Amino acid sequence: MSDVAAPLARYAAYRRVGDFIFLSGVIAVDPAQKKIVRGFDDIPDEIADQIGRTGEFSSDMKQGPILAQSWYVLNAIKHTVESAGGQMSDVFKLVQYFKNLDHFPYFSRVRHTFFPEQSPASTVVEVSGMMPSDDILIEVEATAYLPQHS
Amino acid sequence: MSDVAAPLARYAAYRRVGDFIFLSGVIAVDPAQKKIVRGFDDIPDEIADQIGRTGEFSSDMKQGPILAQSWYVLNAIKHTVESAGGQMSDVFKLVQYFKNLDHFPYFSRVRHTFFPEQSPASTVVEVSGMMPSDDILIEVEATAYLPQHS
Amino acid sequence: MSDVAAPLARYAAYRRVGDFIFLSGVIAVDPAQKKIVRGFDDIPDEIADQIGRTGEFSSDMKQGPILAQSWYVLNAIKHTVESAGGQMSDVFKLVQYFKNLDHFPYFSRVRHTFFPEQSPASTVVEVSGMMPSDDILIEVEATAYLPQHS
Amino acid sequence: MSDVAAPLARYAAYRRVGDFIFLSGVIAVDPAQKKIVRGFDDIPDEIADQIGRTGEFSSDMKQGPILAQSWYVLNAIKHTVESAGGQMSDVFKLVQYFKNLDHFPYFSRVRHTFFPEQSPASTVVEVSGMMPSDDILIEVEATAYLPQHS
Amino acid sequence: MSDVAAPLARYAAYRRVGDFIFLSGVIAVDPAQKKIVRGFDDIPDEIADQIGRTGEFSSDMKQGPILAQSWYVLNAIKHTVESAGGQMSDVFKLVQYFKNLDHFPYFSRVRHTFFPEQSPASTVVEVSGMMPSDDILIEVEATAYLPQHS
Amino acid sequence: MSDVAAPLARYAAYRRVGDFIFLSGVIAVDPAQKKIVRGFDDIPDEIADQIGRTGEFSSDMKQGPILAQSWYVLNAIKHTVESAGGQMSDVFKLVQYFKNLDHFPYFSRVRHTFFPEQSPASTVVEVSGMMPSDDILIEVEATAYLPQHS
Amino acid sequence: MSDVAAPLARYAAYRRVGDFIFLSGVIAVDPAQKKIVRGFDDIPDEIADQIGRTGEFSSDMKQGPILAQSWYVLNAIKHTVESAGGQMSDVFKLVQYFKNLDHFPYFSRVRHTFFPEQSPASTVVEVSGMMPSDDILIEVEATAYLPQHS
Amino acid sequence: MSDVAAPLARYAAYRRVGDFIFLSGVIAVDPAQKKIVRGFDDIPDEIADQIGRTGEFSSDMKQGPILAQSWYVLNAIKHTVESAGGQMSDVFKLVQYFKNLDHFPYFSRVRHTFFPEQSPASTVVEVSGMMPSDDILIEVEATAYLPQHS
Amino acid sequence: MSDVAAPLARYAAYRRVGDFIFLSGVIAVDPAQKKIVRGFDDIPDEIADQIGRTGEFSSDMKQGPILAQSWYVLNAIKHTVESAGGQMSDVFKLVQYFKNLDHFPYFSRVRHTFFPEQSPASTVVEVSGMMPSDDILIEVEATAYLPQHS
Amino acid sequence: MSDVAAPLARYAAYRRVGDFIFLSGVIAVDPAQKKIVRGFDDIPDEIADQIGRTGEFSSDMKQGPILAQSWYVLNAIKHTVESAGGQMSDVFKLVQYFKNLDHFPYFSRVRHTFFPEQSPASTVVEVSGMMPSDDILIEVEATAYLPQHS
Amino acid sequence: MSDVAAPLARYAAYRRVGDFIFLSGVIAVDPAQKKIVRGFDDIPDEIADQIGRTGEFSSDMKQGPILAQSWYVLNAIKHTVESAGGQMSDVFKLVQYFKNLDHFPYFSRVRHTFFPEQSPASTVVEVSGMMPSDDILIEVEATAYLPQHS
Amino acid sequence: MSDVAAPLARYAAYRRVGDFIFLSGVIAVDPAQKKIVRGFDDIPDEIADQIGRTGEFSSDMKQGPILAQSWYVLNAIKHTVESAGGQMSDVFKLVQYFKNLDHFPYFSRVRHTFFPEQSPASTVVEVSGMMPSDDILIEVEATAYLPQHS
Repeated sequence: MSDVAAPLARYAAYRRVGDFIFLSGVIAVDPAQKKIVRGFDDIPDEIADQIGRTGEFSSDMKQGPILAQSWYVLNAIKHTVESAGGQMSDVFKLVQYFKNLDHFPYFSRVRHTFFPEQSPASTVVEVSGMMPSDDILIEVEATAYLPQHS
Repeated sequence: MSDVAAPLARYAAYRRVGDFIFLSGVIAVDPAQKKIVRGFDDIPDEIADQIGRTGEFSSDMKQGPILAQSWYVLNAIKHTVESAGGQMSDVFKLVQYFKNLDHFPYFSRVRHTFFPEQSPASTVVEVSGMMPSDDILIEVEATAYLPQHS
Repeated sequence: MSDVAAPLARYAAYRRVGDFIFLSGVIAVDPAQKKIVRGFDDIPDEIADQIGRTGEFSSDMKQGPILAQSWYVLNAIKHTVESAGGQMSDVFKLVQYFKNLDHFPYFSRVRHTFFPEQSPASTVVEVSGMMPSDDILIEVEATAYLPQHS
Repeated sequence: MSDVAAPLARYAAYRRVGDFIFLSGVIAVDPAQKKIVRGFDDIPDEIADQIGRTGEFSSDMKQGPILAQSWYVLNAIKHTVESAGGQMSDVFKLVQYFKNLDHFPYFSRVRHTFFPEQSPASTVVEVSGMMPSDDILIEVEATAYLPQHS
Repeated sequence: MSDVAAPLARYAAYRRVGDFIFLSGVIAVDPAQKKIVRGFDDIPDEIADQIGRTGEFSSDMKQGPILAQSWYVLNAIKHTVESAGGQMSDVFKLVQYFKNLDHFPYFSRVRHTFFPEQSPASTVVEVSGMMPSDDILIEVEATAYLPQHS
Repeated sequence: MSDVAAPLARYAAYRRVGDFIFLSGVIAVDPAQKKIVRGFDDIPDEIADQIGRTGEFSSDMKQGPILAQSWYVLNAIKHTVESAGGQMSDVFKLVQYFKNLDHFPYFSRVRHTFFPEQSPASTVVEVSGMMPSDDILIEVEATAYLPQHS
Repeated sequence: MSDVAAPLARYAAYRRVGDFIFLSGVIAVDPAQKKIVRGFDDIPDEIADQIGRTGEFSSDMKQGPILAQSWYVLNAIKHTVESAGGQMSDVFKLVQYFKNLDHFPYFSRVRHTFFPEQSPASTVVEVSGMMPSDDILIEVEATAYLPQHS
Repeated sequence: MSDVAAPLARYAAYRRVGDFIFLSGVIAVDPAQKKIVRGFDDIPDEIADQIGRTGEFSSDMKQGPILAQSWYVLNAIKHTVESAGGQMSDVFKLVQYFKNLDHFPYFSRVRHTFFPEQSPASTVVEVSGMMPSDDILIEVEATAYLPQHS
Repeated sequence: MSDVAAPLARYAAYRRVGDFIFLSGVIAVDPAQKKIVRGFDDIPDEIADQIGRTGEFSSDMKQGPILAQSWYVLNAIKHTVESAGGQMSDVFKLVQYFKNLDHFPYFSRVRHTFFPEQSPASTVVEVSGMMPSDDILIEVEATAYLPQHS
Repeated sequence: MSDVAAPLARYAAYRRVGDFIFLSGVIAVDPAQKKIVRGFDDIPDEIADQIGRTGEFSSDMKQGPILAQSWYVLNAIKHTVESAGGQMSDVFKLVQYFKNLDHFPYFSRVRHTFFPEQSPASTVVEVSGMMPSDDILIEVEATAYLPQHS
Repeated sequence: MSDVAAPLARYAAYRRVGDFIFLSGVIAVDPAQKKIVRGFDDIPDEIADQIGRTGEFSSDMKQGPILAQSWYVLNAIKHTVESAGGQMSDVFKLVQYFKNLDHFPYFSRVRHTFFPEQSPASTVVEVSGMMPSDDILIEVEATAYLPQHS
Repeated sequence: MSDVAAPLARYAAYRRVGDFIFLSGVIAVDPAQKKIVRGFDDIPDEIADQIGRTGEFSSDMKQGPILAQSWYVLNAIKHTVESAGGQMSDVFKLVQYFKNLDHFPYFSRVRHTFFPEQSPASTVVEVSGMMPSDDILIEVEATAYLPQHS
C-alpha cells in the first residue's frame, strides 16, 4: 500500500511556498490501487487492532469505516509532510470535513495518536459530500510550517 | 463569561507560524461553562441592545440566536488575536460557515462593527452541520498577519 | 463584462500579507451588473465554444451552467491575481466548494486550461449552499504566492 | 406602479358593510402589470433605502424579497383604506400569513412604520402556500373600522 | 342529502351578532351521514354535469374531488345563510383554505356560479391540513351582513 | 403567572370597535416571563389534574403539551375578554390554528369546559408554523360581541 | 364478530409450553371477515361509548382508530387466554408495538380497564410498520403464566 | 458454509434455561466468513432452486435477497436448535423483524417448508434497521421448548 | 439518584412467574425525578470517566448521550434483578431497541462491563421511536432465570 | 366483469393500421363499473387461486394487488386482440410501466402463463405514477402483428 | 413563432419508414428561440382564450403552463405531420409523458380539440423528468400512418 | 464479453414483424456474466479512452458509469440489429429512459458516434427506476426498419 497522499486528479499533493507546505485535501483512497478504504480490512492488521478493532463483526462494521479512514488520511498526511522534508509536528493547521459529525469522537481518538504533544489549529465542519463518492467519510486539509533555513 | 476562544477538543485555539496567526474555527460556546450561546440572554445586555434586540419576544426569538452567536464568535476572535499580541485589524482573512445562509444579513451587520475600516478577504458557505450540535449556526475561521519585528 | 472578482459584500476581493495574496471566495456573479452567470449566454461566445458548447439546446441547458460558472470564476481569479501584480501560475492552492459534486468533471476540464502546467494544491467538497442564491454552483477560494522582492 | 390592492381574481378588493371595511387578503403583486414584487428593484428606490437596503448584493438578495413585499403589501392596504375614505390608523385588525416565519423580524420592522402609534390586533401564522405562486412570502388581511356618521 | 352546514363538533354552524352572521368554517362533509364528499358520485348528478363532469373516468377521478367539494361547501354556505334569513349575496367575505393551491382554478370556476354579481372580499391560503382527515381539500369561512331592521 | 394575553410584539392584545372586541391570536406564552407553556408543569396543579393529567410520566409527556397549551390559551382569552368588560360567553367566534390536527380531540375536550353552553362559530386548520417557535402547538383568535349600551 | 385472535397466516394463535401460554402478536383484524378495525363503527356500540366516543365526528375520526384497535386487540388477547383455560390476569408480560407513539395515552387508558389490578411487565416501541397494512396502529404480543397443576 | 447461527458480537447464540432454549436474533451472516448473504449465489444451488430461483436475472435479482436470507436464517435456527439437542418442531415461538413488510409473502413461503406441521406462535413487525448493515432484510428470534427429562 | 427501573406508566417493573423474572423494557429515565438521562452530567462522575468521558466538550457531547443511557439502563436492570433476589449473571436474554444502530459499538462496550463472563442471548433492532420522547436512544428488555429452590 | 380493455378517456382501445394492431396502455380498471382492481377479490376466484392466492390474509393482502392487476391487464389485452381478430401470440411487443419494480417477479410469473411459447420484445421501466390514481401498479402497452391477408 | 417540432439535439424531428411516420417526443420549446413555453403569454392570444384563459391572474398562473404546453405540443405535432404530407387524423397513437398527472384533465380538454373525431390509441404515464428542464410538464410521442400509394 | 443484447427475463431480444425489427429495451448488463456495467473498467480499454476516460480517478468515478453504460447499450443494439441482418443506420427510432437527465450530455456525445449521419427519431424521459437494480442509469428501446425484399 502506498502511503503518500497522491493526487486523484490534476492537482498537486502539496505545494511548498516560502516556509510553508500546503497540502491538498486528503481522503482515504489508495492512489496506487484507486481503491477506497472502507474498513479495517483495508488497513494493516496491527493498525486496526491499535485504533479500536474489537473483533466483533457487528461493532467493527459500524466503527471500522471511520476509524480506518481517519488513520489512513492522517497517515497519508504524515508521509506527505515527511516526503517534503518535515514531520507531523510541523503541521500547524487542519481543516477537517466530515460526512457525519457523529463520527467526530472516533476521528478525535485517532488524531490524538498522531499529535501526541502540541495540537494544530483546527476547523471541523460537516459537508454534504466529498470526492469521489459517498463512501468517503472524511477529508483533511493540512498545512505545515517548515522554515527553509531555520 | 470568558471571552477567549478556547479549544473544545484536543486542538490549539491558535498557532503562530512565522508572521501569521492561524486560529481554529470559532463557534459560540463559552469554554468555561461549556454552554452554547443560544440568544440575547447569553450575551451582555448592552451588546444585545447594540446589535439589534427589539424587546419584542417574537422578533427576538427569531433573530436573537444568529445575532448573539455572530457577536460572540467575532468577539472571541478579537480576544484571541489580542491575546496573541495583535488586534482585530490584523485579521486579513475569514472563512465563514453558516448553517443557514438566510442568516447572512444578520451576521454581516455585526461583522461590520468589528471591521469598521478595511475588511478581510472572505469566504462564505453553508454547511450541513458544525460541532458540537445543531444549535451552532455559524463557525468562523480567522487568520491574522502579525509580522514579528515590523 | 467586468472580469475582476469584486466583493459582493463588505469584504476585500483579496488581501496581500507578506509574500502571499489571499483571495476571497469567488462566485460567478458579474459585480458590475449584479447578475448571476447562469449559462453559455452569460459568457463570451468564443469562450462558450471553447469550453464545450455543443449547439444542442438540450445538452447545453444541462452542462452550460456549470461550464460557464467554472470559466467565469477561474477567469475572475486570474484577473484578480493579475491586478495584484501576479499571474495564474502564482496560485498555489485552491479550495473548491460545489453544490453538486457530479459537476466535478466539467469543472476539472475547464480548470486544466487555466493551469496547463503545475497544478495547485486542491481541496474539493460539496456544501449545501453558497451566497447569494441557489443558482450558484461553485465557489473557489484561491491563494497565491508572490514574493515581494524575488 | 399602481398602489391600490386590486383583486387578482373574481373578488372585491374590499367590502364596506355597516361601519366596517373588510379587505381581501393582499399580496405583493402589482395589479396593473401582473408582476410579483421580488426584491428592492420592484419598489421605489427611496423606499428601498428606508426599509433597509444595504447596497451589498449578497445581503440584499437575501433580505430584499421579504422587505420589499412587506412594504408593498402594507402600502397597498393603506391606499385601499384611503380609497374607501379612511386611513391606516382605522385598520384595527390584521391576519398575517407567512411562507416562512423567520421573515417575521423583517416584516415587523416595516409594519411599525405604518402603525407608529396604536397597533392593530394581530394574528400571525405560517402557511404552506399562497396564491399565485411560491414567490409570495406574505399575505395580509386587514379590517378597518370607519363609522358612517358617528 | 342535508344541505345545511351542520357542526361536526361542539360549535355553532353560525352565530348572529348585531347585523352580522358569522359562519363556522365549512368543509364537504354531509352532517347527516357523516360522510366526506369525495367526488362527483357524492353530489347530485345534474350538479356534477353542470360543474364540469366529463364522463371520462380518468379526468373525472382527477378533477371530481375538488369540483364536488367546492360545490358542496358553497352550497352549504348558501343554505346556512338562507336558514338565517339571508341569501348568498349577503355574504361579503370569504376566507378560503386549500390543501393544494393548484386546485384554485377549479374552485374559482364553481364560486363564480354562486356569486354571479358582486364578489365578496376574499383571502386564499394553502394550509397543511383540515379536519377531519386528509381527504378534505377545501374549507371556507364565510361572513354575511344582514342588517336587522334596515 | 399573569393570565391576560399580552402582546409579544408591537400589536394590541385586543381592539374594541363598535360593539365588538377583536382579540389578537393567542398562544401559550406567559407574557411576564416570556416563557412558553410546554406541559403540565407550566400550569397550576389543580388545573392539570382537572384537564387530564394521569400521573404517569409516559402518558403525561405525550398529552401534557397540548392539554396545557389548550387550557392556557383559552384561559388567557377569558381573562382578556373580562378585562374588556365581557365574559367568555360573549365570545361568538374562534379561529383555531393547530400545528398537528391529531391534537384536536385534546383541545376539544378542554374547550368544552370554557363554553359549557352555547358554542362559538369555529374554524379549525392546521398550519405549518406559529410564532415564536416550533413548540407552539395551537393559536386561537377570538372575537367577542359586547354591545356598548345593551 | 369473532373475538378470538385467529392467525392470519400460517402460525398458531398461541402455543402452550410448560406452564406458559405464548400468544402470537395480535392486531385488530377480524379473522372471520378479514376486515381491519378502523374506528368506532367496527366495534360494539356500548364499547365505543365506554372507551371514549364523543359523538363529535371530528374528534371521533381522530381518536376512533387507535381507541377501537386498542380495545379490539386487548379483548382478543383476553378471549384467547380464556380459550386456553386462563384469564386476563394471568397475562404477565406485554410487548406493544405502535405505529405512532403519540397514540400511547389512548391505548394506556384502554389497557387499564383490562388490567384493573396487577399490571403486566411491559415493553413499548414504535415500529415502522405492521402486517398486513398501514392501517394497523398497534400490535400486542402477550405471554401468560398458567401452571398446569397448581 | 457454516450453518450454525454464531454470535457476531459478545452474546450467546442461545441460552438454555430450565426447559427452554432462547436463541439470539438470527440474521443472514455467515459467521465463519463474516459475509452477508445477499442473494441466491450465497446459498447452495439446490436450495436456491427449491425456494424459487427462476433463472431469469431480473426476477432473481429482485426476489433473491429475501428468499436467500429467509432460508439462511431459518436454516441457522434449525441447526442451532439441533446443536442444543432439539429439532425445528421444538421451536414454538418466533419474533420476526423485517426491513420491508412487502417481503412477507416470500418469507412466509420459505418458513412453511421449515414448519410443515404445527406452526409456532408468531409476531411480525417492520423495523427501521438491523445489525450490522442495511443489507439485512430480516432478523428472527426463536424460542424452543425442550423439557430436560420428558 | 434511584437505581431501580421503576415503571413510568401503569405496568410492573418486573414480574416473577415460575423460575423466571420478566422485566419491562427499561429506558434511561430517573423514576424519582422523571428526568431523562441526556449525557455524562446525568450519571455519577466516576462512572462517566470509566465508560469513556474524554473531557473534550465536542467528543463528549456526541458520545455522552448513548454512553450514559447505556450505563443507566443496564445498571437499572442490575438493580431490578437484585431487588428480585438475583444478580446480573442471571439475566440470560436481552432484547435491545436502538434509535440509531450507529450507537451499537458504544453500547456494546458498556454492556461488556456488566456481563464480563457469560453473555446473554441477544436481539438488536433499530426502531423508529421509544417512550416517552425522541431523546430516548435505547430500550432494553431483560429476562432472568432464578430457580425458586435452587 | 367486462374483459375488453375499454378506454377510460377520449381515446381508442386500439387502432389497426396496416398489418399492425396498436393498443392503448391498459390498466386494471373495469370499464363497465369504473372500478379499480385492488386485489384477489376483484378477479374470478379460480384465477386468484391459479396465480398464487395462498388463503393467508397477510400474504394475500401484500401480493394480491400486483398479481390481480397483472392478470387483469394481460387478460384485457388478450380479449382486445381477439376482438380485433387476432390472438395473444400475435402480440410481439410490450412496454410495461411499473409503480414499483419490486413487483416485477410477480408480474413475470403471470405473464409467462399468457405467453407460454414465444415471448414478445419487452421494455420495463418504473414510473412515478399512472392514471387514474395511485392504486394503479402496472400499465402495459401492447402491439400486435396481424397481416391483413395472411 | 415557428410551429414545427424541430429537434433540440442530434435527432430527427420525424422519420418515415414504410407507411409510417414516427415522430420524436415533442416538448413545448420553441426551436427557433430556444425558449420554453411557460404560460399563456408564450402562445398566440386567440389560442389562449380558446383553451381556457380566464383573465384572472391567479387562475391563469396556475392553469396557464399546462394548457399552453398542451396546445403547443399538439400543434407542433400537427405541423410536423403536415410537413410530412399527412394530417392530424393520420396520427393513430400517442404516448404521453406527464410531470404531474393532476394535469391530465387540462391536457385532455385541449387534445379533444385536435382529435374531434376518431381518437388515437393512447398511453399516459407520469415520469420524474423530461428534457431540458423541470419547466417541461408534458412530452408527447406521436406515430402516424400514411400509406405511400398502396 | 458478449455484445448481443440478450434477454434477462422471459422475453425476446428482438422480434421481426413485417419490415420492422422491434428490440426489447436494452440495459448495460452483460448477459453472459449477468454483471452490470458500472464504469470504465467494465468496457474495453480502447473504448474507455475513446469516449472520455481522463485517467483522473475523481473525474472518472463520476462520469465513468454513464459513459460506459451509454456505450455498452448502444453497442449491444448495434450487434443485435446486425444479428438480425441489418445495421445501426437502419435504426430509425429510439426511446431513451434515464435515471437522471443530468446524464444526457454524456449519453448524447456517445450516441453521436453510433449515428454519425442520419439520426433516429428520439424520445427522452427520466424514470424513477429500471430493472434489475438502481445501478442501471439508462435503458434504450430501438426500432429498426429492414424491408424484407428491398
